[in-house]
Amino acid sequence: MNFKEYIRVIEDFPQPGIRFKDITTLLQNGAAYKEAIDEIARFVKDKEIDLIAGPEARGFVVGAPLAYALGVGFVPIRKSGKLPGKTIEADYSLEYGKDKLAVHDNAIKPGQRVLIADDLLATGGTIKTCVNLIEQLGGEVVGSAFLIELTYLNGREQLPAGKDVFTLIQY
Amino acid sequence: MNFKEYIRVIEDFPQPGIRFKDITTLLQNGAAYKEAIDEIARFVKDKEIDLIAGPEARGFVVGAPLAYALGVGFVPIRKSGKLPGKTIEADYSLEYGKDKLAVHDNAIKPGQRVLIADDLLATGGTIKTCVNLIEQLGGEVVGSAFLIELTYLNGREQLPAGKDVFTLIQY
Repeated sequence: MNFKEYIRVIEDFPQPGIRFKDITTLLQNGAAYKEAIDEIARFVKDKEIDLIAGPEARGFVVGAPLAYALGVGFVPIRKSGKLPGKTIEADYSLEYGKDKLAVHDNAIKPGQRVLIADDLLATGGTIKTCVNLIEQLGGEVVGSAFLIELTYLNGREQLPAGKDVFTLIQY
Repeated sequence: MNFKEYIRVIEDFPQPGIRFKDITTLLQNGAAYKEAIDEIARFVKDKEIDLIAGPEARGFVVGAPLAYALGVGFVPIRKSGKLPGKTIEADYSLEYGKDKLAVHDNAIKPGQRVLIADDLLATGGTIKTCVNLIEQLGGEVVGSAFLIELTYLNGREQLPAGKDVFTLIQY
C-alpha cells in the first residue's frame, strides 16, 4: 500500500512556509488505517514489548490501536496537569519557550519494555522527553515507531543510540 | 471480566469533592484494555458502522482501537485550532464559559453511519456537540459507546432519542 497517497499536505499550517502533513485523511480510511497499524505491529511484534507509550494527542491515534493489535497496555504521556494521579514531569522545548510532559508514576514497572509511538518524527524533541520520562520510571525504551518521518530534520539523531526506529512514510 | 477493578478512583480531582475515574490503570493492562475494546466492538459490529468519531484526547484511546478492531476509519474531533484543514465548529459548554469543538469538513461523507466513542458519559455535553458536528456534515449518528457512565448525571437524556448507547462500566 502506498500510504503517502492517504496523507494530505496542507500549505502554511501552522504558520507560513510549513507544509503540514495531515494524517486525518489516512485515519478516516478504514483499510489504510488498519494496514498502517498492522505494518508497524509487524515490525515490533518480535521485540517483546510490554507497553506502548504515546504523547498526546496524535500519539494516541497511533499508539492506542498499536497496543490493541499487540495485546499490550498503553501509557498516555500528557501535557502537565492533565493526568489525574501522581505524575513525574520533564521539560520539552517548544518553538517559543518550554512546556512539560507528564506520566503517571505508577504507569511503568521497572524493567518493562516500552515502545514509543507517535504520528510524526520531526526534530525528535517530544520523543527525547518521552524517553526521559520512561527511563525515570525504570522502563526500558525498546525503540519508537511513527507514521511519518521528516528525514530532512534529522530527528533520528536526537533519539538514544542503539534503539530501533520505524517510520512508515518518509518525506 | 470485572472492568471496574481496573479503574482507579482519585479523590478531589480536578477539584474538591469530585471522585475522578482514572482509566489509565485499565489502559496500561493489555488484557483488560483489549477485552474492553472487544466488548464494545461486539456491541456495535452488526450496526453497519462506517466511521468511529471521538473527541480529544481520551476519546482517541477508545475510538482509535475500536476503529482498528472494526476495520473502519476514525475521525478525530478536536478543540478549535488544532486540526490543520478546513473545519466546521460548534460550541460546547464548560463549567466556566464556552469552548468550541471542530471537525474537518471532509471527514464524513453524507449518509455515512458514525458511532461516537469516548471514555466517559457524564452530563453528555461533549457528545451532544459531536452529534451536532457529525449531522452538519450529513453523517448519520448510529449511537455512542463509552468505557464509563456516571448514571447519576443522567447524560443519556442529553443524547438524541432513538440512538444506541453502550457503556461498559456504570457508577
